[in-house]
Amino acid sequence: MSENNATISGLRQISLGEEIISRINELAAISETPEHLARVFLSKEHRAAAELLLSWMRSAGMRADLDAIGNVCGRYEGLRDGLPREGLPCLMLGSHYDTVRDAGKWDGPLGLIAAISCVADLNRRGVRLPFAIEVTGFADEEGVRFASTLLGSRAVAGTFDESALNARDVDGISMREALKNFGLDPDHIGAAARARQELLAYLELHIEQGPVLERENLPVGVVTAIAGATRLAARLTGMAGHAGTVPMAMRRDALAGAAECICAIEEFCRTDAAGLVGTVGYIHAAPGATNVIPGEVSFTIDLRAPTDAHRKLAVSDIVRRIETIAKRRHLSLQLDVTHENRTAPCAPWLKAQVADAIAAEGFRVFELPSGAGHDGMAMIDIADVGMVFVRCRGGISHHPDEHVELADADAGARVLLRLIENFRSRDEVAVAASISR
Amino acid sequence: MSENNATISGLRQISLGEEIISRINELAAISETPEHLARVFLSKEHRAAAELLLSWMRSAGMRADLDAIGNVCGRYEGLRDGLPREGLPCLMLGSHYDTVRDAGKWDGPLGLIAAISCVADLNRRGVRLPFAIEVTGFADEEGVRFASTLLGSRAVAGTFDESALNARDVDGISMREALKNFGLDPDHIGAAARARQELLAYLELHIEQGPVLERENLPVGVVTAIAGATRLAARLTGMAGHAGTVPMAMRRDALAGAAECICAIEEFCRTDAAGLVGTVGYIHAAPGATNVIPGEVSFTIDLRAPTDAHRKLAVSDIVRRIETIAKRRHLSLQLDVTHENRTAPCAPWLKAQVADAIAAEGFRVFELPSGAGHDGMAMIDIADVGMVFVRCRGGISHHPDEHVELADADAGARVLLRLIENFRSRDEVAVAASISR
Repeated sequence: MSENNATISGLRQISLGEEIISRINELAAISETPEHLARVFLSKEHRAAAELLLSWMRSAGMRADLDAIGNVCGRYEGLRDGLPREGLPCLMLGSHYDTVRDAGKWDGPLGLIAAISCVADLNRRGVRLPFAIEVTGFADEEGVRFASTLLGSRAVAGTFDESALNARDVDGISMREALKNFGLDPDHIGAAARARQELLAYLELHIEQGPVLERENLPVGVVTAIAGATRLAARLTGMAGHAGTVPMAMRRDALAGAAECICAIEEFCRTDAAGLVGTVGYIHAAPGATNVIPGEVSFTIDLRAPTDAHRKLAVSDIVRRIETIAKRRHLSLQLDVTHENRTAPCAPWLKAQVADAIAAEGFRVFELPSGAGHDGMAMIDIADVGMVFVRCRGGISHHPDEHVELADADAGARVLLRLIENFRSRDEVAVAASISR
Repeated sequence: MSENNATISGLRQISLGEEIISRINELAAISETPEHLARVFLSKEHRAAAELLLSWMRSAGMRADLDAIGNVCGRYEGLRDGLPREGLPCLMLGSHYDTVRDAGKWDGPLGLIAAISCVADLNRRGVRLPFAIEVTGFADEEGVRFASTLLGSRAVAGTFDESALNARDVDGISMREALKNFGLDPDHIGAAARARQELLAYLELHIEQGPVLERENLPVGVVTAIAGATRLAARLTGMAGHAGTVPMAMRRDALAGAAECICAIEEFCRTDAAGLVGTVGYIHAAPGATNVIPGEVSFTIDLRAPTDAHRKLAVSDIVRRIETIAKRRHLSLQLDVTHENRTAPCAPWLKAQVADAIAAEGFRVFELPSGAGHDGMAMIDIADVGMVFVRCRGGISHHPDEHVELADADAGARVLLRLIENFRSRDEVAVAASISR
């Protein structure tokens, strides 16, 4: 255990992990309904959560306020020439404070609360660094309310699409109206945008949302990239027929064709050594009766890989295989890309510092990609991105069973704190490298 | 063309096919709604159809009435020692006059109307045979209203399950009430049962409901057996997970497992040389989201073969393959037989007479099994069964596009008429065989 959070002035102080878990629970109590955690963008729960986060930021010694999209923004000034100085470039830490419906309490809040606790720890110890630290609680990452994700981080990165303001939620309320009701000015979202030179880097701690760290028996891991994703919608059309009267050789069974495609997708991804994952999550067979050969089947394909080049190659290879299957079976095929997200690779110089912090905390350094999306996917447009993953039980996320052990939350926070205190900017790293050459 | 229906008394007479099609259309006009043909058991349309059929039977020289379950029963007496004589055993012809919803007009009515037209033709020519001919229009074969099929033929075969009287339709009306409303006595259904010694055989003409005769370019075919069917409900349970965060090797994807099962079922049936067919018609994957690995998949399996032994062997082999797939993938499996119908083989001595009639009409003799169920499945309990199939366009059935060409309806009826006129009982066939030895 690092000595930082063991004692202060000789008194027992709660660990970073304990403080974080207490706050995780306090934040999780702010929900649309008490039974199921739900805190969607610009709701009154969202507003209450923002106020709580602002209060924590301020008590951690930060200046804190909402920005134009509802992000919670705290800033802890740095020190130059022995004196606090405003306007220094910042190391930005963050994660999101919206949730899916019937959510777990860790996805988003863990990274955000851990960052606030790290700053609070620095503040308690009177530590200031030669750069500012900003903590950003992104207002919308999940995209539940307006079916458009990363709204908070896109506003900060200056890539917010203004047409999204006209999107409406299930109750018919537009994002523009919702922003006004929240007390924000939809015509000034541009004011949330930050400039590249203001940021030294963007660092995020997040639960893994997968089972790999648990399998590796590790509390934390170094994220290599936030994998890009391509989603496709496939429709195979054959010929419906009586299950008893059409001989096997005369069938154009759309479901048998889809099954062959699903097996081919799985086989292709399973034999890939570079982290490609492919999922068919949705399928519908029509007419869908026990005694009728399916004439039409629709299914989705979700493909992710740690690099765009690898994913794109995989997509075209899988499309070719599906086309071949459809042709051989005399099925007509419609195949459309419905969604495409580029990969956000973590910067090598940041991965190295994450790895150093993990090693210094006494853990084996283990690298893994993030298959889930994160705010870094938007932040990469204005900053190099690094990420720390924390183990979550069973890899379960977006579910009330989502769980992080106290020891793991503490380990993650200590890694983050060490990262902050030992942080060297890209320029400093480059200078150090040139000296050592 | 056979000379029977070309002329009578030198006047142009319409062909059997023309009469049949005219009556098919007249009967099809009796429907729940004018747009979609639907004539379900014990409805007022069903009653009107029964009256029309009775009138056709009577004008064909038959004594005709409803039996205790609503079957339309006509009888044309035979001749012994040159005189009409009551009480002779009968050759029973038949098919059903109920329909599915949004039905075609041929499934059922073709065989029934063709049989009435054949008797009408004999009657016009003053021909009586040394046995009686009965024509039965079965009241319920499709089982639409009470989810229990073959009600009419089961009553005749004496295998009607009295507990079905308590079944209720979607409006909550029990079969018992519906029978009373129709003017029948539910306590006397047993009176519809016939004894084995009353029947020489049961012969049915029916549309194929499949594409085989069309492929063979033949208007008619000899049915070898009404294939038995086994239906199973399968449920595979794995582990739902995030489509991006769970590596391929750590997945327990229920849909990928189901896809492998579907491919295995298709492959097993496709490589079977004895007419086995297998269909997965229904599938449901949960939770069913693009970006979630399916944790649970349900699907149905429908297996049919021309013999029970072959089907049972196939079922156990397929079950073993599914178990192997589930085990290898660490999926839990629930697999239940939800329905089982034994095969009704057509009697060789009847198949031979069907074949002779087809050959005499100038068509190539072609044998095929019936994958669909028919009243012969019930009638086999009291009589040997023979069937003639008539080509239907594209193999389409249970659909408004169901269609039979005039020439094929005519060919089918001529085969049936020839069958009747040349019919020899099982005993006569046996005697002839012993003489020829």
